[in-house]
Amino acid sequence: MNLQDSQRLDAQDPLAALRAHFILPPGVIYLDGNSLGVLPAAAPARMAEAVRQEWGDGLIRSWNTASWFDLPQRLGDKVARLIGAAPGEVVCTDSTSINLYKVLFAAIAQAKADPRRHLVVSERSNFPTDLYIAESLCEMHGLELRLIDEGELPRVLDDTVAVLMLTHVNYRTGAMHDMAAVTAAAHAAGALTVWDLAHSAGAVPVALNDSRADFAIGCGYKYLNGGPGAPAFVWVNTRHADRFRQPLSGWWGHAAPFEFTPHYRPAPGIGRYLCGTQPILSLSALECGLDSMLAAEPMGGMAALRSKSLALTDAFIALVEARCPGRFTLVTPREHARRGSQVCLSLTAAQSPTQAYAIVQALIARGVIGDYRAGDAHTPDILRFGFTPLYLGFEDVWRAVDHLVQVLEHDEWRRDEFNQVNAVT
Amino acid sequence: MNLQDSQRLDAQDPLAALRAHFILPPGVIYLDGNSLGVLPAAAPARMAEAVRQEWGDGLIRSWNTASWFDLPQRLGDKVARLIGAAPGEVVCTDSTSINLYKVLFAAIAQAKADPRRHLVVSERSNFPTDLYIAESLCEMHGLELRLIDEGELPRVLDDTVAVLMLTHVNYRTGAMHDMAAVTAAAHAAGALTVWDLAHSAGAVPVALNDSRADFAIGCGYKYLNGGPGAPAFVWVNTRHADRFRQPLSGWWGHAAPFEFTPHYRPAPGIGRYLCGTQPILSLSALECGLDSMLAAEPMGGMAALRSKSLALTDAFIALVEARCPGRFTLVTPREHARRGSQVCLSLTAAQSPTQAYAIVQALIARGVIGDYRAGDAHTPDILRFGFTPLYLGFEDVWRAVDHLVQVLEHDEWRRDEFNQVNAVT
Repeated sequence: MNLQDSQRLDAQDPLAALRAHFILPPGVIYLDGNSLGVLPAAAPARMAEAVRQEWGDGLIRSWNTASWFDLPQRLGDKVARLIGAAPGEVVCTDSTSINLYKVLFAAIAQAKADPRRHLVVSERSNFPTDLYIAESLCEMHGLELRLIDEGELPRVLDDTVAVLMLTHVNYRTGAMHDMAAVTAAAHAAGALTVWDLAHSAGAVPVALNDSRADFAIGCGYKYLNGGPGAPAFVWVNTRHADRFRQPLSGWWGHAAPFEFTPHYRPAPGIGRYLCGTQPILSLSALECGLDSMLAAEPMGGMAALRSKSLALTDAFIALVEARCPGRFTLVTPREHARRGSQVCLSLTAAQSPTQAYAIVQALIARGVIGDYRAGDAHTPDILRFGFTPLYLGFEDVWRAVDHLVQVLEHDEWRRDEFNQVNAVT
Repeated sequence: MNLQDSQRLDAQDPLAALRAHFILPPGVIYLDGNSLGVLPAAAPARMAEAVRQEWGDGLIRSWNTASWFDLPQRLGDKVARLIGAAPGEVVCTDSTSINLYKVLFAAIAQAKADPRRHLVVSERSNFPTDLYIAESLCEMHGLELRLIDEGELPRVLDDTVAVLMLTHVNYRTGAMHDMAAVTAAAHAAGALTVWDLAHSAGAVPVALNDSRADFAIGCGYKYLNGGPGAPAFVWVNTRHADRFRQPLSGWWGHAAPFEFTPHYRPAPGIGRYLCGTQPILSLSALECGLDSMLAAEPMGGMAALRSKSLALTDAFIALVEARCPGRFTLVTPREHARRGSQVCLSLTAAQSPTQAYAIVQALIARGVIGDYRAGDAHTPDILRFGFTPLYLGFEDVWRAVDHLVQVLEHDEWRRDEFNQVNAVT
């Protein structure tokens, strides 16, 4: 694919029209939508309305007139359309970590019902926060958190496992689990599944109900473009929704929140996974992100977005391999069925300890925003590039790789300014 | 006080200038700042900047350039100035309910250290969510939640009490505890104290360190004017900060959040009370509210605001008693030392089951926004009026009571439209 090819592909792409739903800074090729999604074009006006009219003019009356109280469910119903869930099964609320705490606490009831089941199983490569939350809950309940490596599934699943907690698409590698197959294996062993969809929702098709998954949580500010630190979401399979409880028993999850009764009675269904009053302004921004994503529905929705995502990542991989031969090792699976919507590269032979970091910095200076994830004894440093088909095209891919080639050919990455490791994100 | 008196008092009031820091809807006398604070004048432009520049243009780079990561601490330091805490002792994060869960969980370690201490004591009249959270944690830890009535303190405090959990200013009655005296009594019995400052922060002087309190949480969207559902805050006395842990062990509370280590290690100090990524847009709005409040510092700060608050509530009580003789019973303590920044009234002899509700609705129709709280077998229906000296004056008080007189004299409250009980808040 040369520049002209990429431009022709964009011209033929029916999804290219979705780009108008977003505002991107001029001169930027944004390959970090897997970390923080871009600004929906509708958000500035919607936020001004939420601030001036709903808060400023409506004040307390807006709880009724602006339907603030319904936001977690209304937004949840929109998320549901992206993750294979039904209306009424999802709420948008709190943070991903807090929602994980809720569902993992609920799932651990499984261990209490059968004392042989003393294990929560997860992957060593899982997102650290997920492991921290699991560590805390395992300690609290006298369970063991067993961390496995790639390839140990499904072998480790037996009647000692209470819960299998996995991130569907790995944040570092972009490798994706087969949710239906893994869930079936867990169920065959009598274990419940908790899925983190942080890098899946809005990025790849997810079929929670068809996969018979048990619990899922996910992030609002990555592929869903909900704004920095946007509230997260939580889903529980309806067969469990009334069966388990979560311990953050705030008024918003009460069966009769306005009766102000002295005792807690959990709401039926997913409502019991709410806790306290939610950040309405941040939820309002999240709705703009969800609406921008749902604008793809008439064009084929997640299936069409997935096809384009795979075409974009295929093109990126092919161009990197063709134009930077031997320089990078592909960390992300080449196989479509195992690939999320990102491409991660490691250096085949790093020329300095900070080279991977420095390449990312040099690319950012050129307007190509990806990110860097430090390695450790077991894993290499990673250059991570997220591809969001809502607002990226094939020309963006071609130009991003062209910048990468320049950074390498001209040894731009060697500049001191790019080698001072000081990353917050 | 007649209308001219009230206008003269406003003209002499140096705090009246603070009104310019807020945008109120025309024609509204807002006596519900204890439920949802008003819009700071700086907020619309600040929110537009956070949305367009920080999110839209800065994107992921804003974690560094806009100091998003420091927001919980930076805002916490501002809250600290309002509640008698020191810099570095407070973070703004999550919801009030979730923060209560964190600190109550931490405080319950006290019970684990001494099995005789099997009680968490609170008041039957406490805000229901606080009781729900305590109920959940007591059940989890095999403790008993004992609910006491007014006057039972300090008698119930003995060596069976692990934690005394109180709301400083009662949400229904506006009655205020003597924090220093109650804390001393709890400590004399060996119990820890958890204070909910939802109706205190920004409303009355609070001296957490001088009172030797142990844990405190509070709300961002009431007197702090942080916007609907604004993030809450949490304070832990430095003598406990490194001693206890809270179980919501997300990455933001990790000692080294960017090292992505597989095991959780709590940050020193108040940082360990953070969990997941925070709603940056809602935090940005909260900062506007805090700045508007801190604008009173050159004029005497909380002490000056308190004097005015007491003068406003004194005037309101006196006018209601003079102009509606015998109609209402004052629920809020008349004694200054026991009064928060609100006045609650019940009907001396209700003329219909919905009269209290209907009076509030009729007042709202006239632009006087207070709220209604339903009673139960033990407590009467309540008309609740919050007084925020930042943007209310004596003329507002006079006019609010004048509207109340009109509503009663003309039997406006009897209209059907005001008697359809359908309140969300």
